[in-house]
Amino acid sequence: MDINEIINQMTIKEKAALCIGASAWCTASVRRLGIPQMVMADGPHGVRRAENIDEVHNIYSLRKSLPSTCFPTASAVACTWDIQLLTEMGEAIGKECIVQGVDILLGPGNNMKRTPLCGRNFEYFSEDPYLSGDLAAAFINGVQSKGVGAALKHFIANNQEYKRYTTSAEIDERTLREIYLTAFERAIKKSKPWAIMCSYNKLNGIYCSENHELLTEILREEWGFDGFIISDWGAVHDRTESLKAGVDLEMPGPQKKSFKNLIKAINNGELTEKALNDAVKCILKAVFKSKEEKKSVEDIDINSHHELARKIASESMVLLKNNENILPMTKPKSIAIIGKAAKTPHIQGGGSSEVNPSNLDIPYEEIVKLAEGAKIFYEEGYTMKEEINPVMIDKAVSIAKDAEIALVFLALPSHKEFESYDREDIKLTKHQIQLIKSVALAQPKTVVILNTGSPVSMKEWIDDVQGVLYSWLMGQGGGKAVADILFGKINPSGRLAETFPIKLSDSPAYINYPGENNKVIYGEGIFMGYRYYDKKEMEVQFPFGYGLSYTTFKYSNLKVSSDEFKDVDGLTITLDVKNTGKMAGKDIIQLYISDKEARLARPIKELKGFKKVDLKPGETKTISFKLEERDFAYYHPKYKRWITEDGEFEIMIGKSSRDISLIKKVRLISTTQLPCTLDYNSTVREWLEDKKGKEIIESLSKEIMNRKDFMRLSSDSNVDIWKAAQDTQLIFLLKQISWALPLVPDIIMSRLLSKVHGERK
Amino acid sequence: MDINEIINQMTIKEKAALCIGASAWCTASVRRLGIPQMVMADGPHGVRRAENIDEVHNIYSLRKSLPSTCFPTASAVACTWDIQLLTEMGEAIGKECIVQGVDILLGPGNNMKRTPLCGRNFEYFSEDPYLSGDLAAAFINGVQSKGVGAALKHFIANNQEYKRYTTSAEIDERTLREIYLTAFERAIKKSKPWAIMCSYNKLNGIYCSENHELLTEILREEWGFDGFIISDWGAVHDRTESLKAGVDLEMPGPQKKSFKNLIKAINNGELTEKALNDAVKCILKAVFKSKEEKKSVEDIDINSHHELARKIASESMVLLKNNENILPMTKPKSIAIIGKAAKTPHIQGGGSSEVNPSNLDIPYEEIVKLAEGAKIFYEEGYTMKEEINPVMIDKAVSIAKDAEIALVFLALPSHKEFESYDREDIKLTKHQIQLIKSVALAQPKTVVILNTGSPVSMKEWIDDVQGVLYSWLMGQGGGKAVADILFGKINPSGRLAETFPIKLSDSPAYINYPGENNKVIYGEGIFMGYRYYDKKEMEVQFPFGYGLSYTTFKYSNLKVSSDEFKDVDGLTITLDVKNTGKMAGKDIIQLYISDKEARLARPIKELKGFKKVDLKPGETKTISFKLEERDFAYYHPKYKRWITEDGEFEIMIGKSSRDISLIKKVRLISTTQLPCTLDYNSTVREWLEDKKGKEIIESLSKEIMNRKDFMRLSSDSNVDIWKAAQDTQLIFLLKQISWALPLVPDIIMSRLLSKVHGERK
Repeated sequence: MDINEIINQMTIKEKAALCIGASAWCTASVRRLGIPQMVMADGPHGVRRAENIDEVHNIYSLRKSLPSTCFPTASAVACTWDIQLLTEMGEAIGKECIVQGVDILLGPGNNMKRTPLCGRNFEYFSEDPYLSGDLAAAFINGVQSKGVGAALKHFIANNQEYKRYTTSAEIDERTLREIYLTAFERAIKKSKPWAIMCSYNKLNGIYCSENHELLTEILREEWGFDGFIISDWGAVHDRTESLKAGVDLEMPGPQKKSFKNLIKAINNGELTEKALNDAVKCILKAVFKSKEEKKSVEDIDINSHHELARKIASESMVLLKNNENILPMTKPKSIAIIGKAAKTPHIQGGGSSEVNPSNLDIPYEEIVKLAEGAKIFYEEGYTMKEEINPVMIDKAVSIAKDAEIALVFLALPSHKEFESYDREDIKLTKHQIQLIKSVALAQPKTVVILNTGSPVSMKEWIDDVQGVLYSWLMGQGGGKAVADILFGKINPSGRLAETFPIKLSDSPAYINYPGENNKVIYGEGIFMGYRYYDKKEMEVQFPFGYGLSYTTFKYSNLKVSSDEFKDVDGLTITLDVKNTGKMAGKDIIQLYISDKEARLARPIKELKGFKKVDLKPGETKTISFKLEERDFAYYHPKYKRWITEDGEFEIMIGKSSRDISLIKKVRLISTTQLPCTLDYNSTVREWLEDKKGKEIIESLSKEIMNRKDFMRLSSDSNVDIWKAAQDTQLIFLLKQISWALPLVPDIIMSRLLSKVHGERK
Repeated sequence: MDINEIINQMTIKEKAALCIGASAWCTASVRRLGIPQMVMADGPHGVRRAENIDEVHNIYSLRKSLPSTCFPTASAVACTWDIQLLTEMGEAIGKECIVQGVDILLGPGNNMKRTPLCGRNFEYFSEDPYLSGDLAAAFINGVQSKGVGAALKHFIANNQEYKRYTTSAEIDERTLREIYLTAFERAIKKSKPWAIMCSYNKLNGIYCSENHELLTEILREEWGFDGFIISDWGAVHDRTESLKAGVDLEMPGPQKKSFKNLIKAINNGELTEKALNDAVKCILKAVFKSKEEKKSVEDIDINSHHELARKIASESMVLLKNNENILPMTKPKSIAIIGKAAKTPHIQGGGSSEVNPSNLDIPYEEIVKLAEGAKIFYEEGYTMKEEINPVMIDKAVSIAKDAEIALVFLALPSHKEFESYDREDIKLTKHQIQLIKSVALAQPKTVVILNTGSPVSMKEWIDDVQGVLYSWLMGQGGGKAVADILFGKINPSGRLAETFPIKLSDSPAYINYPGENNKVIYGEGIFMGYRYYDKKEMEVQFPFGYGLSYTTFKYSNLKVSSDEFKDVDGLTITLDVKNTGKMAGKDIIQLYISDKEARLARPIKELKGFKKVDLKPGETKTISFKLEERDFAYYHPKYKRWITEDGEFEIMIGKSSRDISLIKKVRLISTTQLPCTLDYNSTVREWLEDKKGKEIIESLSKEIMNRKDFMRLSSDSNVDIWKAAQDTQLIFLLKQISWALPLVPDIIMSRLLSKVHGERK
């Protein structure tokens, strides 16, 4: 297929038409040239193929789509920390795409969880770009292994739903690079997605759909992305501007206005035909690739996909509290099951990601199956209303009393987990809180199962209960998974992919969210997620990376390939992990690094590796990590690049971000070559950080220190001025001492600068 | 004196020369026209008149100046909350200026305490713009009542010393207006300072000395400032640019380069002669005013100024902890005085504000005088070194054991309270902490007297001691003041003008400070100081407004002039304050407001009034506050103005920002007239907030609500879409329901907009 040849034969109108959807879900076909349509479907956790792909209205409708497997949502699957499993999920979804005639799956979502209020958090993986990027890549690799394209979204900074169409995310360059872009960069480099979907919002004042720096300079030129860029549905404001910035395909269609806009721009020279051709080429590459590479799928074993959904759900769930080993349940003679969510589980959130599940496990029913004849009581326990309903609570308390153990299943009102609407708080309803407290008072053995897609605050009630299991929005197989974990058929292994704060006001974006005057300032900068709680030395309810197991693990024998290493050589780390308990189980070993000597502020720790291992009781495995130059680097806005610096790092191995078991100090030797940027206003510290600058300063210092009387900053302390003045401009220091020494500051400064730059200034 | 006539006679060169200092401290004189020089001197807490005012070098030197009264520094005097006292202090300093031939006093400092690390915080009043503005005004009114000008500084956002010459304070418009500018606006409007000094740093990328919007549009045109603008010493980079922006006088001088630069700019038309004339006029007004209005001062009663310094010091000190009424001391038979600061008190910080005190009270000596023959032990206790010195501690412990009570006097190493250097932490030295702990272990009756200009963290040791008195950098009379308080000769009445955090990482700017790449982002926005701790629901060591007394006060009978009032009418509040204890004392009653219904995020509470009363035991006084429109307003960046809104406010009367005794709800009726800004992207809430918009939306809502099935957001909850979607764009909502209703969103939207704007769109 010679795409260039096809483009040569296309008319301007055909080209323009191809760059705009022909319907809600399809691109235009050009029969005379053999260009077929390309079909898209929503799908972070399952395929949502519209019944009628040619529909032109109803783009925002949530009409029934074809049945498909509903996997747990991204916030759940992220807690598996399981690359293999994400790939399998992607493969399964890819197969379902093929059967349903879908060429491009609109997913996964890779936005960072900046605030727990974001209504779409259930569709996103994590607050950490490293973890999120790797999980997204695994999913994409799975989907694309079937010859179906994935569209990684939403690029970039659609981290809240509030005013998502118009708000400008105001993010400084370093933060953008280190947090928000890194998640995408990792995913893109590890999986080469066929498409990137740009987001609705503005970034630093410019719509992402019109952001040339973002879509072309960074995404294509710097990262080498060679797929097509698609707009989020309705994100294009000016078709020509968006095409010039890099959006190849506007969706949905048809859009007469956009079409005219493109034709006019070509005619009046505002848009070159080359630019149009480039966009067409990107689209056609995907159109033909999907025809050529799509695997043939005879038929799907839909049951095996349901089994996979169960497996993923069981590995997603996180055991948060398990006092006195209340779980797993050991053959109770009676169980009180309380809460509507036990019979009507929430398997997904609302909005464009909503799929029509092919099957559905009900927690209540699965528990009955495993209960071995135990007496089961059930009470609905709550409605979705805030107000406390004492009658429902009394009924629940009454069955809780009569049973050996109470299981309280809770889900949030659905409108709190819905695309386009942010939550207002992170609490359960007042009624639900009272329900927990009343049940727990009546029945000391109470376990709460939280069936929600985002963290809820637990401070008000967690001390009252013995167990908490987070089951997330658990997909169609979650009902069985939850029963398996409660009864110990499965040993829980999920670990939080996001911090659970004690209260909403603790969260990093709280001060700035939701922004005003159509701007939201990312005032916390790089200190987002656990980076924030660490920096602020704050208590959290449950830290990033946290999760309990029915067994115990021990880490030992931490080794590094070298105590001192060149950045370009990277570093290999090994350690032993032993299952020291009595049940087989999976553990997730987390590697964090801490930069002890950076010039700019760095997070206290950052995730740079994770491994999941399956261990029988008593079994030990040796695992290894390989860290690369980039893992130690940070983005320096002055040099506009990633840099490493000589200095000490700590390699930390932890069970969570707040439970570090092993630490090893290493020394990095940087090969980063930076231009000398010392200038008239540089600080003493900056002079000392520059190799040549350091020599010069030290000789100057010696010269001046001979006059000791001038070099003490204050009479009561022997602090020498060079130490106290580390962060003061050198010129200022020279001026301060010029009254006592025969020097003219400006002249000295100019001499020093010419020395350091090796030229006359 | 016809200034215009004089200007007419001046040559361009004479004018240019007048706009640049002639020496370190003086303006140029023009003998042939009878223009005398104008003499300046540093002076937030005392006059620092150089011995040789004509010196041209050594501008940064801390050479001895003429002796003058050293009052407590600004961070101390702010804790008096005493307008009258600040005015008296200003008067005294004004008189000393006259005697020393000073025309313009360079002070007070009015910068906000954004971080406790700022090395110059001791020169500033508060973290609250209302309090700081009022105190600055009182001081200025005092100085200027003597015909001496005051230069209010540093305009603006010089809130850290780190890289103060080059860093850009990145502050959003609302934050700048509500916090940083408000402090100056209040002071300027209440005191009409003769001069404003612009700061070194940049504001949003532009040097304050070249910031036309700041110096001309806001300061002169909007606020009506009609004095002269002076550069901070060395803050001018390009004389022409700074003159065009509004800097009338560059200091220090002489500056040949600047002179040439101005002449050249006039010659090539870059600068108009009118602009130069305007600057000259501003300077000449002050030059002649100072000659005409300066009061004649026969001689100064330097002793009465020392007495005033003592009085101010005694009202500045804040009793922070007083368990079991350990203070005042009741005739102890023996006292262990520990700590160098008892014999070498820190009376001020380092840098340009340092004055040469005319007298000095020593705490140790004053205690001895009041001790009525009690046995006094003394140990130096510490040096300024970090490392723990066990010998010194042992000696201190030994005298503490032998005495009835131990008084531990501590000061920080001086380089931690020094202009141009920020602190690195807020801790006492390791040695000092160990000293306190060891002494307190040996002697249960231990009182710590902290002789520092900024908060220190106390978490590590405060539970170990019974009493803590903050004596601040207490000026030359502080030694007597501290003794008077310890012995109960004076009942302490100081209240904190800034929050004392538990640890540094709690503080509002911690995440962003000190910035990097020459920018410091004010990420906490308007939530600075107590506004931050309130919003984040954080514990603090001691809240803003806090301070103990030897007596107790009770508030009652809170009344407002009206429960519902028009903003323009303002509101009068009265209450009764009673001294319910056994000792006469002064109390500071604080009034905060809380806006319960604002469109934009507002602080939980904001100080809008304070009154200091002196009450005998059992005495009751009725006090009143008058709030004005501006007190209820906030700055809306969309409208670029201060606005009020209809809605509920709480009027809170407190003993501190965290100890609110009385609350009254009132309802404000706004007279603010705003243009309708509803547009295609407005949210449902914004439509409902607009009077006309509300009508339109409600009728639309009714129309749509007839189709109830579409108006529930999710099946499990009865939340109607209008409620859940408050913060969603209306257009998005219309699109979401368009699949089910016969409407075309864009057409409806255009109809609604034309209705609300009363015209066709």
